[in-house]
Amino acid sequence: MGKKRATNGRLARKEYERALPLLRERLVQLQVQLKESAAKVILIVAGVDGAGRGDVLNILGEWLDPRGVETFYFHAPTDEERERPLLWRFWRRLPAHGRIGVFASSWYTEALHEEVSNKREQADLQKELKGIRHFEKLLSDDGTLIIKVWLHISKEAQAERLRSLESDPDTAWRVTDDNWSAHKHYDRLARVARLIVKETDSPGAGWTVLDATDARARNLAVGSLLVQRFQSHLRRITARHARPERPTLHPRSLAPAGRRRLLAVRLDQALSEEDYERKREKWLGRLNRSLRALQAARRSIVFVFEGWDAAGKGGAIRRLASAMDVRNYRVVPIAKPTDEEKARHYLWRFWRHVPRDGFVTIFDRSWYGRVLVERLEGFARKDEWRRAFKELNEFEEQLVNHGTLVVKFWMHISRDEQLRRFRAREHTPYKLHKINEEDWRNRRKWGAYETAAGDMLALTSSHFAPWHVIPSNNKRYARLRILKTACRAIENELEQ
Amino acid sequence: MGKKRATNGRLARKEYERALPLLRERLVQLQVQLKESAAKVILIVAGVDGAGRGDVLNILGEWLDPRGVETFYFHAPTDEERERPLLWRFWRRLPAHGRIGVFASSWYTEALHEEVSNKREQADLQKELKGIRHFEKLLSDDGTLIIKVWLHISKEAQAERLRSLESDPDTAWRVTDDNWSAHKHYDRLARVARLIVKETDSPGAGWTVLDATDARARNLAVGSLLVQRFQSHLRRITARHARPERPTLHPRSLAPAGRRRLLAVRLDQALSEEDYERKREKWLGRLNRSLRALQAARRSIVFVFEGWDAAGKGGAIRRLASAMDVRNYRVVPIAKPTDEEKARHYLWRFWRHVPRDGFVTIFDRSWYGRVLVERLEGFARKDEWRRAFKELNEFEEQLVNHGTLVVKFWMHISRDEQLRRFRAREHTPYKLHKINEEDWRNRRKWGAYETAAGDMLALTSSHFAPWHVIPSNNKRYARLRILKTACRAIENELEQ
Repeated sequence: MGKKRATNGRLARKEYERALPLLRERLVQLQVQLKESAAKVILIVAGVDGAGRGDVLNILGEWLDPRGVETFYFHAPTDEERERPLLWRFWRRLPAHGRIGVFASSWYTEALHEEVSNKREQADLQKELKGIRHFEKLLSDDGTLIIKVWLHISKEAQAERLRSLESDPDTAWRVTDDNWSAHKHYDRLARVARLIVKETDSPGAGWTVLDATDARARNLAVGSLLVQRFQSHLRRITARHARPERPTLHPRSLAPAGRRRLLAVRLDQALSEEDYERKREKWLGRLNRSLRALQAARRSIVFVFEGWDAAGKGGAIRRLASAMDVRNYRVVPIAKPTDEEKARHYLWRFWRHVPRDGFVTIFDRSWYGRVLVERLEGFARKDEWRRAFKELNEFEEQLVNHGTLVVKFWMHISRDEQLRRFRAREHTPYKLHKINEEDWRNRRKWGAYETAAGDMLALTSSHFAPWHVIPSNNKRYARLRILKTACRAIENELEQ
Repeated sequence: MGKKRATNGRLARKEYERALPLLRERLVQLQVQLKESAAKVILIVAGVDGAGRGDVLNILGEWLDPRGVETFYFHAPTDEERERPLLWRFWRRLPAHGRIGVFASSWYTEALHEEVSNKREQADLQKELKGIRHFEKLLSDDGTLIIKVWLHISKEAQAERLRSLESDPDTAWRVTDDNWSAHKHYDRLARVARLIVKETDSPGAGWTVLDATDARARNLAVGSLLVQRFQSHLRRITARHARPERPTLHPRSLAPAGRRRLLAVRLDQALSEEDYERKREKWLGRLNRSLRALQAARRSIVFVFEGWDAAGKGGAIRRLASAMDVRNYRVVPIAKPTDEEKARHYLWRFWRHVPRDGFVTIFDRSWYGRVLVERLEGFARKDEWRRAFKELNEFEEQLVNHGTLVVKFWMHISRDEQLRRFRAREHTPYKLHKINEEDWRNRRKWGAYETAAGDMLALTSSHFAPWHVIPSNNKRYARLRILKTACRAIENELEQ
């Protein structure tokens, strides 16, 4: 179980008021420093009914500068939320760096609630807690300070508090049937809570259990805990202050088999214009039918397009999309992140676009930028991009567990073919905008990208979301191959 | 009816292919210029079934740089959308400036569909079309280029096209039952479409009806239309190139009665600590009960807090919120817009936070910044902030029409009282963060703000969303008065 902190039992009002000014001064100073270092802070306030969760949130609203705080609470999921992976609703609400995210209810609330209302199997709880651990680890690895407070009072203290509120006609409204029901199930709730706290008391996301019997002592304890955790977090941030990484031209491969696989790809396919047109219509029709069947089953699809510059991603995406109803799919081109995106975990901007059940999202470039351009250009630190392979697999696993089909294409061309296409772009006025100095710069790093792409293919080709390497020197062949692959992936899914 | 453009009847493939390169070159050049001037462009592609809406969208995806295009389509509204005003779902999808928003379906789709399926009264259609006109005017006034294309084919051409697709087994999948049903109701659909086009063919948002019988002629017509509209829009942007406004210390009042009302506010109320505490609990209880009743009726509330710096907005909001369940309300502090917000219509960032049915949003400062700080500091041009009074009223009217209760407070203090509070902040370490040079600067503009606030109170105090001026020299009195006002506003709503 989480770390227990002693609170001083009953606290006299005078003593409380003496302690407050210094505490509040320290808190706002620290909040300013956290903001200035764009620190990532999440505070979860959970606990027993009647332990004063609402009062604590209210007092924090007074102690902290509310402009730097975002408070969240989660109700029953909306249909937009239900039709996406479990954690989507929390991802969509992640606060920006530099602001303190206070979670009045959180990913724990549902877990606790469902468990107590006896709605599911023990195994499901364990699976959900595992998901929570992964989520918190992801945030914590990214440098997020996660403070989790559990406010505890005894069954007797709970009854006493509810009765005392009820006895005054002016405060009786604060007590609801839910409160008494929670009291009735106190023991059971306490048991589940202990289990949840124990199972999710991880390094980097530990619980602090506070005795909340006395309101003033409880408030001071929460305040002091924040001061202490803010201070140590700021020290840690300053200590590891980011020395920027430098771009690398000669990355060391983590999984040389991936690069070997790339080098072995045959690129000399032929396909005549007539052959292509005939087969295309046939496969588009077949793809359209299977897409509709999958959508009828309320399943969603994520297509990922990665590949060399000028490999033909745009054209292939348009051909793929022409089998779809315009209302059902969306193409998301991934370029530079906006500032709202930069101010959050790097996966946030992809979670934003995760499709609802029955819909298709086509990513033109994707989260794999983390282990390609960000790795090679030094935008991500070494520990960050190395960790990313696992994080990207886990991200896709969450999609797949929810029922999303994930189909990933690497469009592969030879270096010579790229040169031909770059030159053609430079000589076609309406294609000129597709080529710039950066493309030429990237081209000079071909070898480095070959290594990074190889590592990516080897380390993120999971059984639930394998990579499809598409030979693309011949555009027609590549487009048809993508249609076929997409079609078979969906049909395969339908058969299961 | 919208402007009809002649297309050249049948167009030979050779002629088509000869015209293409120049058209495409021009389009991408213009797209670059639009992006560079952060132009606001919305393109709606609507029309008869089988007229090739999908094909047109596809070809635009090829002609334009897809990274600068956002394509949208609207399905049946989700519950998150149904539980907010009609236009919320379109507001939430407005593209960023500099990108071209292509609407494959739009605010017209539902209007047409519902009308044809005979689901409602003529009066409802007229009301919806009025809302659409307002929405488009709002965008157009803001400098958005709105291009609305209606693709037209005759009933015979429609039948021919559907039959020709069906006759080839490879393309038969492109024809659905919906298409044939649309064919059966061709005349009726055409009649409603004519009405809708006529009623929404406004200056700044006119329709262009294109003959879409011949696919190549249609494509060229769409392309040429875009070239022409892009060009004229760019000329207009360059011509009126924003000379920045200068801050003003001596604004001219538009409605002097508002300022007089402010000056006449009594500020010498007294309320003892004991009196306050007793009454507060009572009113909190009453407020809680009425809030729960309103929420049980699935109604939402928007509270707006405006007022002088140091008038006590934060404290009043916390007291108000203490009557609410933490899960049901959200406090949204309005500070500087993020870049995603700056890149859209100024109301977008407020639409973002419009509450769902059954929820409460408390705005700590609000859209009224447009006619206060933005007016006085020159952040909005004169035509912009003058237009805003009407726009803000319309915004709130939409909330109210949806069933949202809008309660607005202006917290009023005297200039002397502000000085006392500023000094107290400077002498209390934990309040120091609440005061900075800007507050002192604003204070020196007291008279100007008095005029702007007066205009605001006079021009935006509608019967559906009146302003409540709260005398706030006495903090306890102000907090209690806000509780009472909120409570009565809700009770009043419940009685209706």
